[in-house]
Amino acid sequence: MTSDPLVIFTPSGKRGRFPAGTPILTAARQLGVDLDSVCGGRGICSKCQIAPSYGEFSKHGVTVRDGALSEWNSVEQRYDDIRGLKKGRRLGCQATVQGDVVIDVPPESQVHRQVVRKAAAARDIVMDPATKMYFVHVTEPDMHEPSGDLERLARALRDEWGIMDVHAPLPVLKKLQKLLRKGNWEVTVALHRGSLDTRHQIIDVYPGFYEGRIYGLAIDLGSTTIAAHLCDLRNGTVAASAGIMNPQIRFGEDLMSRVSYAMMNPGGEVEMTAAVRAAINDLTVDIAAEAGITPDQIMEAVFVCNPVMHHLLIGVDPVELGQAPFALATSDAMGLAARDLDLTRMNDAAQVFILPCIAGHVGADAAAVALSEEPGKSEDLVLIVDVGTNAEILLGDTSRVLACSSPTGPAFEGAQISAGQRAAPGAIERVEIDPETKEPRFKIIGHDQWSTDPDFDAAAQITGICGSGIIEAVAEMRMAGLLDDKGLIGSAEQTGTARCIATGRTHAYVLHDGTAQGGALISVTQGDIRAIQLAKSALYAGARLLMDEMGVDHVDRITLAGAFGAHISPKHAMVLGMIPDAPLDKVRSAGNAAGTGARIALCSVTARQDIARIVRQITKVETAIAPKFQEHFVNANAIPHATDPFPNLAALVTLPHVSFNLGGGGSVDDQGRRRRRPRK
Amino acid sequence: MTSDPLVIFTPSGKRGRFPAGTPILTAARQLGVDLDSVCGGRGICSKCQIAPSYGEFSKHGVTVRDGALSEWNSVEQRYDDIRGLKKGRRLGCQATVQGDVVIDVPPESQVHRQVVRKAAAARDIVMDPATKMYFVHVTEPDMHEPSGDLERLARALRDEWGIMDVHAPLPVLKKLQKLLRKGNWEVTVALHRGSLDTRHQIIDVYPGFYEGRIYGLAIDLGSTTIAAHLCDLRNGTVAASAGIMNPQIRFGEDLMSRVSYAMMNPGGEVEMTAAVRAAINDLTVDIAAEAGITPDQIMEAVFVCNPVMHHLLIGVDPVELGQAPFALATSDAMGLAARDLDLTRMNDAAQVFILPCIAGHVGADAAAVALSEEPGKSEDLVLIVDVGTNAEILLGDTSRVLACSSPTGPAFEGAQISAGQRAAPGAIERVEIDPETKEPRFKIIGHDQWSTDPDFDAAAQITGICGSGIIEAVAEMRMAGLLDDKGLIGSAEQTGTARCIATGRTHAYVLHDGTAQGGALISVTQGDIRAIQLAKSALYAGARLLMDEMGVDHVDRITLAGAFGAHISPKHAMVLGMIPDAPLDKVRSAGNAAGTGARIALCSVTARQDIARIVRQITKVETAIAPKFQEHFVNANAIPHATDPFPNLAALVTLPHVSFNLGGGGSVDDQGRRRRRPRK
Repeated sequence: MTSDPLVIFTPSGKRGRFPAGTPILTAARQLGVDLDSVCGGRGICSKCQIAPSYGEFSKHGVTVRDGALSEWNSVEQRYDDIRGLKKGRRLGCQATVQGDVVIDVPPESQVHRQVVRKAAAARDIVMDPATKMYFVHVTEPDMHEPSGDLERLARALRDEWGIMDVHAPLPVLKKLQKLLRKGNWEVTVALHRGSLDTRHQIIDVYPGFYEGRIYGLAIDLGSTTIAAHLCDLRNGTVAASAGIMNPQIRFGEDLMSRVSYAMMNPGGEVEMTAAVRAAINDLTVDIAAEAGITPDQIMEAVFVCNPVMHHLLIGVDPVELGQAPFALATSDAMGLAARDLDLTRMNDAAQVFILPCIAGHVGADAAAVALSEEPGKSEDLVLIVDVGTNAEILLGDTSRVLACSSPTGPAFEGAQISAGQRAAPGAIERVEIDPETKEPRFKIIGHDQWSTDPDFDAAAQITGICGSGIIEAVAEMRMAGLLDDKGLIGSAEQTGTARCIATGRTHAYVLHDGTAQGGALISVTQGDIRAIQLAKSALYAGARLLMDEMGVDHVDRITLAGAFGAHISPKHAMVLGMIPDAPLDKVRSAGNAAGTGARIALCSVTARQDIARIVRQITKVETAIAPKFQEHFVNANAIPHATDPFPNLAALVTLPHVSFNLGGGGSVDDQGRRRRRPRK
Repeated sequence: MTSDPLVIFTPSGKRGRFPAGTPILTAARQLGVDLDSVCGGRGICSKCQIAPSYGEFSKHGVTVRDGALSEWNSVEQRYDDIRGLKKGRRLGCQATVQGDVVIDVPPESQVHRQVVRKAAAARDIVMDPATKMYFVHVTEPDMHEPSGDLERLARALRDEWGIMDVHAPLPVLKKLQKLLRKGNWEVTVALHRGSLDTRHQIIDVYPGFYEGRIYGLAIDLGSTTIAAHLCDLRNGTVAASAGIMNPQIRFGEDLMSRVSYAMMNPGGEVEMTAAVRAAINDLTVDIAAEAGITPDQIMEAVFVCNPVMHHLLIGVDPVELGQAPFALATSDAMGLAARDLDLTRMNDAAQVFILPCIAGHVGADAAAVALSEEPGKSEDLVLIVDVGTNAEILLGDTSRVLACSSPTGPAFEGAQISAGQRAAPGAIERVEIDPETKEPRFKIIGHDQWSTDPDFDAAAQITGICGSGIIEAVAEMRMAGLLDDKGLIGSAEQTGTARCIATGRTHAYVLHDGTAQGGALISVTQGDIRAIQLAKSALYAGARLLMDEMGVDHVDRITLAGAFGAHISPKHAMVLGMIPDAPLDKVRSAGNAAGTGARIALCSVTARQDIARIVRQITKVETAIAPKFQEHFVNANAIPHATDPFPNLAALVTLPHVSFNLGGGGSVDDQGRRRRRPRK
């Protein structure tokens, strides 16, 4: 008796002997080889494409001869005629084993294939989405076996896919019967696997084999902006991205003023909840339109946000987050129906997953940053600064991870800045000032040329200055000697440039004057400088507090993150004193790490389960009650600042020794303080 | 070394040795003795009252001496001062073991105590409600241990009560923080245990120890009437009962006309769903008001209903239930949030449980009847007839249970009857007709005297005739010779009474003429007779079909159930030919068995789990496709009817041999048939 043929799969190397006639898909499943299939081996979905190799394989000790697989069959021929099958490819559900064979599973046929992220990638996402498609054949109803249509669908999912514990929410139950009959008892089911329990929820049902794509939203719900990525749930690619202002801004620019609004106005939290949910609904419609899909193709949404946004999203009064001990209503990850949050513009049965919060001031956004940047896996000590209206700061390595949040205010997002605006076409995003002539040049979003370039023709389109632009402007002003280390802007006489104009008792530096052409006057005012000083002092103080707690006075590397983190210039950030001193090549922009964390959680149930563990391992440091925080904050007011040494920066640039004073009485410092203070 | 004291509990007989100083409650828990406690042994709830016995117990082999329990303590004294403790009672959480002791657990201290049902009781309900109260002490929030308030509450439930998998829906999460602080971190939690999974849902939270009661609704959602019982979830007692008409009647009187309405009118099912949900909301408010409680004390609702009502309640188009193979959208029991069904007048987080359906025409109401009447546990062959617009019929014994439904129409509920009305004050419910004088006497709901009684003073309040009244009236007319066996009413000449008046080509019998006093004229018309004939033929044909299937030509006993089942006179039902012949003493009224089944499910999670098994064991017989059904239906048209023998009835009454014909042309039969026909 000869033994059964040997089947070897690459790249996994898994192997086993199977009787002649066994379909390759069956062999793969029995060996646990990662070979995709949506239709369950019916030759419809073509996801199980494989590539047989022929010849001598000394490495594997086999020779694969012609005829090792069954002949090309009519199902494969039909598929090839209609859609085309790459040369050398077979359908794994149709081709059967006939002799020893080596089968390659190409990346696109792997379920858990790695999705390569963009340039800024810190890690790859392995696709393991909560919502997947399953094609099933459902037994027809029978008067002698009177189970319901749903129960027979659940049985098909169990028998064909081994999936248990299937539930259908009412919106699905409403349409189920019609769709089963329309599909002649063959349907494709979009099924959502809970990451917090063993339940499977049917999100949607399509008659027959569904050719379309399904999507999920990764939403970074910030105090100032709401940023969303629409991701294809089969491969994790971003089909569209969109951002809008958080409409809660009208209730208060920063978190504490929104908490105050809720405290002072009965029902205020209800208003804010309604506003943010409506905005997310609008964003959902916009992003679907941008990607050219229908909103009901959006099966789920993952949210990351700070605790106040978190509570206002789920409809909980954030008042407890405004006072010690900053108790969260709930800290664990949440899985719930989108309709329970009035998020009615995605699929009727869409599911929402909200990442866990680390603490009362360190939210799901910080958890998402930790998921994306993985400080706990870093060999060297990394400081991660997620810049936003509330900054999330993480410091750690494999031994320990600390986290805090710091109330920077919205200045870094272009709010509270006289000519500030969000990062959108027309906003100044890069600034250089010539130290000799004190003349500026800049770039605006949507144009590649510098403003001094002869081809630059967008002067009329300049609308304001965005977060990264104001950081560069302030740092360049300091380097050009237009600003002293206390943050005072010099007068025209003091600086030798007419661009320094008097505005009341203080001065402003004119970046661009388009008024003659009916355009905007873009200047950096003394108030703008003070807002940036407060923001950067809060940011720096938070980082220093974590360094104190860790017992270190320098970090090995720094990651700048945030909705606009990718755009911050490390050098300018260091000139400002936003971040501790570090070798410039060790300062990296990670882009919107919280948003990336949301995308990772969207693409991977495993990541959703991981984050619970990661969050438990993070030690939270409370800035609001640490006396040292206030001390660091005051010391960090100078530019770069008063106490901590900046050896790396000093080696890089020489900051001019200038010192200005006020034109009138009083002090700028007073004026600056009048604007806002960090939470006590 | 002497051994530890022996503690013996009665009535369970459980015993064990415990170190001196062990609280009785602790000993009871360790032995698995059913001793209640809501506060977890804090001396607050007084649910753990026990009664120690002293003296010689030869049966148990112990002698209980004074001092066997610790002395009366200050907690018990305070409780006695404020609320009073029955003589001889101690608090089980305070009294500790000091020597051998016999402890009696009085019925009111048992969690799973039996609740004695009313006169019609077929079985006792053992309390095991899904929603129970738990008093817990929650750890205060701490900045150094930043878990959420919900997570700490869940931990308290785990540590103090051993309860895992606790969830809070958004309405609870919204108010949780305020209530925890108001209760100074001690709260009473109304916790709902799922019967379909292991989840526990928090329904409500009360600051401190909650003294109030919590309730559930058992709702029998019929085609014509919606009947509800409000039950105290601690002891199962009915605090209030209420019934209203199902407003869907305006879309069609019987099930099939409602299915037709949905088929003919796009969105018709949405209208009907909205109507029935609104009615249930109104009913909820009314019944709470009647019981003097607030609607938020209603923690859950259990529904029983036929499949069409079931689908319209959950918002599914019932169109598939109107045609073979009568496929249900879902057949299993459902557990969902009341707010998902727009049932917003009970507690915001109230839960709904809907019993499973047996088949496309045999619904959760039949399942509830099976739960209440337990035909599968009967040694003799029992026929259970649940009379309603759609009758549920069960036939079985320990060997096998069959079920079917039959479209009787609403005549038995007083609809489609010229003077018909639902059972309410003013309705004629009992009728007798003197065979000699042909004069009637009757009773109306709300009055004890017969209408011929000299004290009868309610003539002016007579408003109509209810279901049980019309059954008695028709049967009495037959017995008095006013009606022949084909169902024709004789003329005044033929019957010798002026009460038989001509109405067009047919006749009517005047039961009561209040017109001279400005009151109602209550008569039984030929049309009424035809409606009753159609209804009773359908009912009988269903019962006969099951008997055919079972291979029997008689049954041992008959149970009449239904919203008005308790009021049907067995003799009159048999004269009509509603039910097969049986010894009169073997025909019993069970009241609203479906409603009782709903109450049982409301009071017992175990029963909810049982019903799934019971339903699987019932063989469903489909009346709609059985040719024999139509044959039985036609044969059952006569009164009592044409073919089957009625020996028991014949021994009881002699029906006069009369035969009438029509006054004019055409046939009454045509006229009757014009009204409605059973489903083909």
